[in-house]
Amino acid sequence: MTPPTAVDTLIEARWVVPVEPAGMVLEHYAVAIRDGRIIDLLPIDQARQRYTATEHVSLEEHVLVPGLVNAHTHAAMTLLRGFADDLPLMAWLTEAIWPTEREHVSPDFVRDGTRLAAAEMLRGGITCAQDMYFYPDSAAEAFSEAGMRAVLSLPVMEFPTRYAADADDYLRKGLAVRDRWSDHPLLSFALGPHAPYSVSDSSFERIVALSQELDCPVHTHLHETQAEIEDSLRQHGMRPLERLERLGLLGPGLSVAHAVHLTDGEIRLLAERNVGVIHNPTSNMKLASGIAPITQMLDAGVTIGLGTDGAASNNRLDLWQEMRQASLLAKVASRRADALPAHRALRMATLDGARSLGLDDRIGSIETGKEADLCAISLANIDFQPCYNPVSHLVYVVDRHAVSDVWVAGKPRVRSHSLLQFNNIALQQISRSWQNSLC
Amino acid sequence: MTPPTAVDTLIEARWVVPVEPAGMVLEHYAVAIRDGRIIDLLPIDQARQRYTATEHVSLEEHVLVPGLVNAHTHAAMTLLRGFADDLPLMAWLTEAIWPTEREHVSPDFVRDGTRLAAAEMLRGGITCAQDMYFYPDSAAEAFSEAGMRAVLSLPVMEFPTRYAADADDYLRKGLAVRDRWSDHPLLSFALGPHAPYSVSDSSFERIVALSQELDCPVHTHLHETQAEIEDSLRQHGMRPLERLERLGLLGPGLSVAHAVHLTDGEIRLLAERNVGVIHNPTSNMKLASGIAPITQMLDAGVTIGLGTDGAASNNRLDLWQEMRQASLLAKVASRRADALPAHRALRMATLDGARSLGLDDRIGSIETGKEADLCAISLANIDFQPCYNPVSHLVYVVDRHAVSDVWVAGKPRVRSHSLLQFNNIALQQISRSWQNSLC
Repeated sequence: MTPPTAVDTLIEARWVVPVEPAGMVLEHYAVAIRDGRIIDLLPIDQARQRYTATEHVSLEEHVLVPGLVNAHTHAAMTLLRGFADDLPLMAWLTEAIWPTEREHVSPDFVRDGTRLAAAEMLRGGITCAQDMYFYPDSAAEAFSEAGMRAVLSLPVMEFPTRYAADADDYLRKGLAVRDRWSDHPLLSFALGPHAPYSVSDSSFERIVALSQELDCPVHTHLHETQAEIEDSLRQHGMRPLERLERLGLLGPGLSVAHAVHLTDGEIRLLAERNVGVIHNPTSNMKLASGIAPITQMLDAGVTIGLGTDGAASNNRLDLWQEMRQASLLAKVASRRADALPAHRALRMATLDGARSLGLDDRIGSIETGKEADLCAISLANIDFQPCYNPVSHLVYVVDRHAVSDVWVAGKPRVRSHSLLQFNNIALQQISRSWQNSLC
Repeated sequence: MTPPTAVDTLIEARWVVPVEPAGMVLEHYAVAIRDGRIIDLLPIDQARQRYTATEHVSLEEHVLVPGLVNAHTHAAMTLLRGFADDLPLMAWLTEAIWPTEREHVSPDFVRDGTRLAAAEMLRGGITCAQDMYFYPDSAAEAFSEAGMRAVLSLPVMEFPTRYAADADDYLRKGLAVRDRWSDHPLLSFALGPHAPYSVSDSSFERIVALSQELDCPVHTHLHETQAEIEDSLRQHGMRPLERLERLGLLGPGLSVAHAVHLTDGEIRLLAERNVGVIHNPTSNMKLASGIAPITQMLDAGVTIGLGTDGAASNNRLDLWQEMRQASLLAKVASRRADALPAHRALRMATLDGARSLGLDDRIGSIETGKEADLCAISLANIDFQPCYNPVSHLVYVVDRHAVSDVWVAGKPRVRSHSLLQFNNIALQQISRSWQNSLC
């Protein structure tokens, strides 16, 4: 008989949903973790024979899934949660959000807001976020402190802010941040031209060149509102997506947030070029932007991840809500109750989100060799009974408060519903202090 | 100085949102309760001088709102939560739900399923539900045991089930249940013709006569799907709403669930006749029925309450979710971010729901003289920080797990997040036993 192998952590769960292979639900399975990676996935009884673990976790009424990937957010805007609601989009931006940002956004604002966001996301099972905001250096500090994986999308726009004077200045500052954190195991970077309406052709060209030179992905907002498209037609004589195509942006290294308004030809183009689309259903509803044609994009083979957008337009960083919303919205928009079934919604929130960020070789599913970003959900709550199908419950029934344990690269970040990296009192004080200064 | 008056309960809260007057948020207010009724609403410091209370409750980080009204549900279907999902509507009904109901629905099924539902609803702040299901006697037992307010809508349809043989039999059995429980302070009754497609003209005529004779409201499903309307055009040569109008159903005593597909003329008719509409946004999305024209109905002055529908098509009995969903859906459907603002969504879930059931003289707002159906939500959770506007948070941020305390007619039903009338282990056993027999 072979002696057992030593591992760091052995997690046993009532159900494991690895996401890949698609549709699979494993009962009474265990995940073995060593050096931050998944080294085995096997039945509990076999795992107990084969491995001895430094830490042994037994999750008897839980589903273990890959950590969720929030593929589009503006983390620091957590400080503006519910700051202004129920306003027409332009009034919301020009009278509430932008003036407040102009006055208050600073390195401290971003560090503190991102701390709150990382705490909220981790406790809700999100192990990786793609963030886009000013002062990414401060965001990097907060994500690093939280022990959370993040893709920091380095903002570029033409107009000046307290953070940077012009597109060159944004790029220079962003690339310096990228250099500073290049060795961090959980942080990676994307170039983040804000949107076609806020970035010039020449800046986009520079970004294309840099992304090739540095092998760096690109993230932008695209076709969020009908007005954005009409403005582009007036100003550039073409729709924003066509403009990005001509400028050479489209490819597997590009992820675009929103993509609410698309022609059939545009959907085909996104699929052909392997552009990742990030669907933000709650934000698109709350800002009345429209309903993205998710069913058509899925049929065409577009990779679709999910995002919460910022807390100012959602108002929560909750990917369980987005999964449910994506599924419900796809059903009602396509008039097909079988559109976007539960397994597929979970895949969007994990593996497809990771793919849209170019991280699917490292995270997004529970497979041997991948980094151990994991999330356990307790189904013990009486409000979740009965349970005929745990994956249906993950999408249609549970709340983020059911998340009990979270690991990032094998390290525990939430244990029995408690966040390990931050303490609640400190977070409350941070929030209260900013609220007082913003009011 | 006047000596203090004795009351049963004095509840002090950081915020009180009485719903009527519309838009009001009171800070540091207290509610005084005697004999199950609200006898005063006043600032905390005045309340402490004016009243001595047997029970004194201090809610320092909470919002106190009227208990939520779930104006359309099939409570016992909680036992079929997630039993079948992601199926086209007719396959879902004919292959999954109806055969299971035929085989399993019994007085015990209804009593146990309604217990689970009442527990879920109370813990989530719902103090009153309009229920429609077979064996209403068993549902009445469960609601009575739970100490929850309910309108039991007595089902009537033409086709036979284990419960009843034909429309006359349904009516006879239903009226007997009404007689049996007529003295119960929390239970009231409606006649419940299931839907225009399952009830004949002559049964509707009999129901109209009975409702007038007994002064009893009527509740039915209406215009849930486009197919229902097309079938009616084929079979009756008119749309279902026109048929109900000709049969004399339309009036303030009628509440209709769904109303997804409506012409402008139909919206005007619903407003003119003071018909209550119950909007079930999650169910309408999940079954791909469509998006009800809520903004247009509100503009026309239609009274709109909110419902969860049954757990088989939602899959939760969570009116916070329905509030958020109603608001988000109204915004995206109307392309106006200012559609259905937070205060209005809260009003739908409380006072307007009560009005649709004809109960707005007794419940639905925190006003002197009304019965003390109340719900307290804790905003202490760090995921809810910062909080610039508590009513925005109620709709866009909080989950039902934030509900800390619930009273029905002045009696505590949930205290510090714990349900008082049921114990969790018993509920788990009930659920497990039914799950085993249904699988």
